[in-house]
Amino acid sequence: MEKIRVAIVGWGNVGRFCKKALESSPDMQLVGIVRRPESIGKDTSELAGLQVVSDIETLDKVDVALVSIPSREAPDKVKELILKGIATVDSFDVHDQILATKQALNPLAISHKTVSIFGAGWDPGTDSAIRAILKVISPIGQTTTTFGGTTGGRSMGHTAAVKAIPGVKDAVSLTLPNGAGRHKRQVYIELEPGADFEKITDQIRQDPYFIHDATDVVAVENVKRFDTMNHGGRLERLTPDIQQTYTIEGINPLMTANVMVASARAAYRAKELGQYGAFTFIERPIIDFLPGEFEEKLEGY
Amino acid sequence: MEKIRVAIVGWGNVGRFCKKALESSPDMQLVGIVRRPESIGKDTSELAGLQVVSDIETLDKVDVALVSIPSREAPDKVKELILKGIATVDSFDVHDQILATKQALNPLAISHKTVSIFGAGWDPGTDSAIRAILKVISPIGQTTTTFGGTTGGRSMGHTAAVKAIPGVKDAVSLTLPNGAGRHKRQVYIELEPGADFEKITDQIRQDPYFIHDATDVVAVENVKRFDTMNHGGRLERLTPDIQQTYTIEGINPLMTANVMVASARAAYRAKELGQYGAFTFIERPIIDFLPGEFEEKLEGY
Repeated sequence: MEKIRVAIVGWGNVGRFCKKALESSPDMQLVGIVRRPESIGKDTSELAGLQVVSDIETLDKVDVALVSIPSREAPDKVKELILKGIATVDSFDVHDQILATKQALNPLAISHKTVSIFGAGWDPGTDSAIRAILKVISPIGQTTTTFGGTTGGRSMGHTAAVKAIPGVKDAVSLTLPNGAGRHKRQVYIELEPGADFEKITDQIRQDPYFIHDATDVVAVENVKRFDTMNHGGRLERLTPDIQQTYTIEGINPLMTANVMVASARAAYRAKELGQYGAFTFIERPIIDFLPGEFEEKLEGY
Repeated sequence: MEKIRVAIVGWGNVGRFCKKALESSPDMQLVGIVRRPESIGKDTSELAGLQVVSDIETLDKVDVALVSIPSREAPDKVKELILKGIATVDSFDVHDQILATKQALNPLAISHKTVSIFGAGWDPGTDSAIRAILKVISPIGQTTTTFGGTTGGRSMGHTAAVKAIPGVKDAVSLTLPNGAGRHKRQVYIELEPGADFEKITDQIRQDPYFIHDATDVVAVENVKRFDTMNHGGRLERLTPDIQQTYTIEGINPLMTANVMVASARAAYRAKELGQYGAFTFIERPIIDFLPGEFEEKLEGY
């Protein structure tokens, strides 16, 4: 069987874990890494033996690109790849822009005969699929999603949003459960010399990522000691006749990367079937995300 | 929008809850109930106002038949309906016959240009979908499924299998967790006069439904006081880096009926798209099981 040829676009935490996830996927082959021109030549020891380029078209035949760059930059990069006819997967995490993203990417993917699976991390992504299944079993009710696992967790999307603010040298944004599906955000920042702490704090609190939640911002000498890779969530749908809960906890970029790599498989399959378009995780059959032959996919059904 | 026209085939616990589930589904319309000829005229008060027939073709235009009869009779009934070009949904629950059922029904459904979604209750069915998602997030590991909720639950499939044994007047089969994903079966039976308890006990223990589990059989005067509608399960996939659990607990035939009604929607959609065949729950996109317009389906994504 021919392997699915995958490129990783962006070399942050998620990109690094995508490489690991690909290594344990016998149906996939990592063709190369795409980075910004100014990053070429960096991280040489961990990238040893890999082709690292700034233009994806210099790589030999890429079936699917795993776009592992900050969420807000992802849709533009995805558009650029779709125009080249390359299938894409990303873990775009801005929940209230999912529909708009679908509307922007779908006609483009159709006209360029390719497939994009977007918003495909663990939340949105697999959690969204589980939320849909909870509804299938118990149609009338309310699902509560609480992030932060048992002890709070590091949100990659929120962290990246803070890091993008001028004057912020480094940052960590932790998500803490605050009851009834609400959250607190605990943001640790290292400031550039001369940066205005009050102004940056206001900017963080006004950011769409933070505007709905109680947000504490703390300036520290070094954010590293507040850092963690762990995150998690708890979904609950509790109705008088049916009670369901789902909990997930673990290494955040690993969980994201595993879902993205599985989505590359589903994107490849959709393209093979000529089912072009931009899809959320719940628009593709779950079986297409699993490796192996049909019989193996049904194992444990 | 035109409503999906649904018939319920079989009037047991699941059939009754299918009627309830349809009543709260604005996109569906219950066209009638199909029963064995000898049952026509029974249960008149609860069936008041409904068309009850023994031949589905006497009902006006059925899009989807919800086949809510004992699992072991389901595949034959489904075949019969497929030959008439009617889409079907069932909650066939014999896990190790899923692949064989697919192979038997799929070519038939394709050649008769219809759709069958089979094994579509909560387990197999939605639990199978969640097991697949747990694997997507954490590809290497083992998933443990423990049935019985917190206090043990009534298995409809096991109960029906015991009831079908000659000499058994009535029965209830309870499933109890037995550690490490293993189960005990506690079976209460009412015997017909002159029935051989030892022989029936052996027959139960040799039945594929029971052969893998420790099974206690107890003869009682009246099984009703051991009866319950509740059941549940717990899925766990615990690996060093990622931990996931899912629990479900509630009224067993209600959970089953809700999944079947949602599957009727997905079957109708597949037929509309000309994607004929027999499918497990995980072979159809989850979004197709949700009611409403595309925008509503994505709500809470």
